[in-house]
Amino acid sequence: MPHLFHHAFCPHSRFIRLVMGELGMEAELVEERQWEHRPDFLVLNPAGTTPVLVEGSSFAVPGSAVIAEYLDETRGLVLSERRLLPEGPADRVEVRRVVHWFNVKFFDEVSHHLVQEKVYKRFMSAEQARGYGGAGPEMKAIRAARKNIRYHLHYIGFLARKRNWLAGEQLSYADLAAAAHLSVCDYLGDVPWEEDLQAKEWYARVKSRPSFRTLLADRLPGMAPTELYADLDF
Amino acid sequence: MPHLFHHAFCPHSRFIRLVMGELGMEAELVEERQWEHRPDFLVLNPAGTTPVLVEGSSFAVPGSAVIAEYLDETRGLVLSERRLLPEGPADRVEVRRVVHWFNVKFFDEVSHHLVQEKVYKRFMSAEQARGYGGAGPEMKAIRAARKNIRYHLHYIGFLARKRNWLAGEQLSYADLAAAAHLSVCDYLGDVPWEEDLQAKEWYARVKSRPSFRTLLADRLPGMAPTELYADLDF
Repeated sequence: MPHLFHHAFCPHSRFIRLVMGELGMEAELVEERQWEHRPDFLVLNPAGTTPVLVEGSSFAVPGSAVIAEYLDETRGLVLSERRLLPEGPADRVEVRRVVHWFNVKFFDEVSHHLVQEKVYKRFMSAEQARGYGGAGPEMKAIRAARKNIRYHLHYIGFLARKRNWLAGEQLSYADLAAAAHLSVCDYLGDVPWEEDLQAKEWYARVKSRPSFRTLLADRLPGMAPTELYADLDF
Repeated sequence: MPHLFHHAFCPHSRFIRLVMGELGMEAELVEERQWEHRPDFLVLNPAGTTPVLVEGSSFAVPGSAVIAEYLDETRGLVLSERRLLPEGPADRVEVRRVVHWFNVKFFDEVSHHLVQEKVYKRFMSAEQARGYGGAGPEMKAIRAARKNIRYHLHYIGFLARKRNWLAGEQLSYADLAAAAHLSVCDYLGDVPWEEDLQAKEWYARVKSRPSFRTLLADRLPGMAPTELYADLDF
């Protein structure tokens, strides 16, 4: 069985867990704390980031963008017309554009800061935290993320008003990437859902998919999720 | 003819210009100053970044990662065994991993700072520069980039010692992405080539390809390149 080196609150890892769920693909989840810079993990991914998918005994596929393309090419065809990276060139451009938006832009502006400051730092030693601006959450980064998330939420609402799903008429990688990043922010109570009801309705649809269940069961020791995190009718 | 909205010193745009050169593909280059946030450009790419490839009258392909996949799928096959994103699943993983390293990690840690502070800010109004930390280059960002580039250079040397090209035995997107980002830093005199001779030898090989000529001819008004920028025997 493949192994996925991941962290339960790493948004990129969550994206790949959703993809695997939609593909009906099983993998053994192995928690990786990327801030520990474990030498054996750096062999799998010299960039040192989660997730990494390992097939067989040693074939490593590092990084959510690379894993998503790899899974589409090696397993995506089984979904036939429900393929998560659709066939047409223009559809593929739009799905990849929106995936990139969330995996790079949203991550840089929102989810990276919230996860690092509010989650990962809880597990770091003082020595480890030194490489991340010091122990204890940086409130400036958290405030910036909370401000930035608003226009992303409106952008989701804008896309969801134009189309059935974020990148077109079918569920795609775009929805899974966006929902993965938002789900972490939602656990932490940092999504102002009431500001865009169309975005909220879209998220409720993604969240009710069976592939999402494993994410909704994740719990952070000593930090409960917001009340509606796992509520499918929120 | 397709249009490429680009900036001569945007490393992502340079990557795509190299790809088009290798593909023998012609496109009209249109300079875009992304810091002007031109409304018509935001329609082509809501993220507001260069490059954007426009096919026909209105089909926009935004962002170097998306363009590279699109060009491979629509034009890459003409290269046959010289295809820049090779056929085998493991080869594709390695090429995409290294491309992502340079387009995301190297950009975040090095080229983004050097280009923004040393190039783009020369063209910004005081009002425009306010959104980028103020007019005048931020020396702290430049110093960090100059420090970070060293381990990236050693990583290139490490890869070039193991293989013929950065991601395998054949030239691939990985070499073009890495060389595109380095070429901007090289113009600015910020690559300590003497620290890794294997990296330097690899760069000289990429630089001597015909696809590179257009990059070597680029000039920044009022800022000449380093002496060896366009020297193929440096």
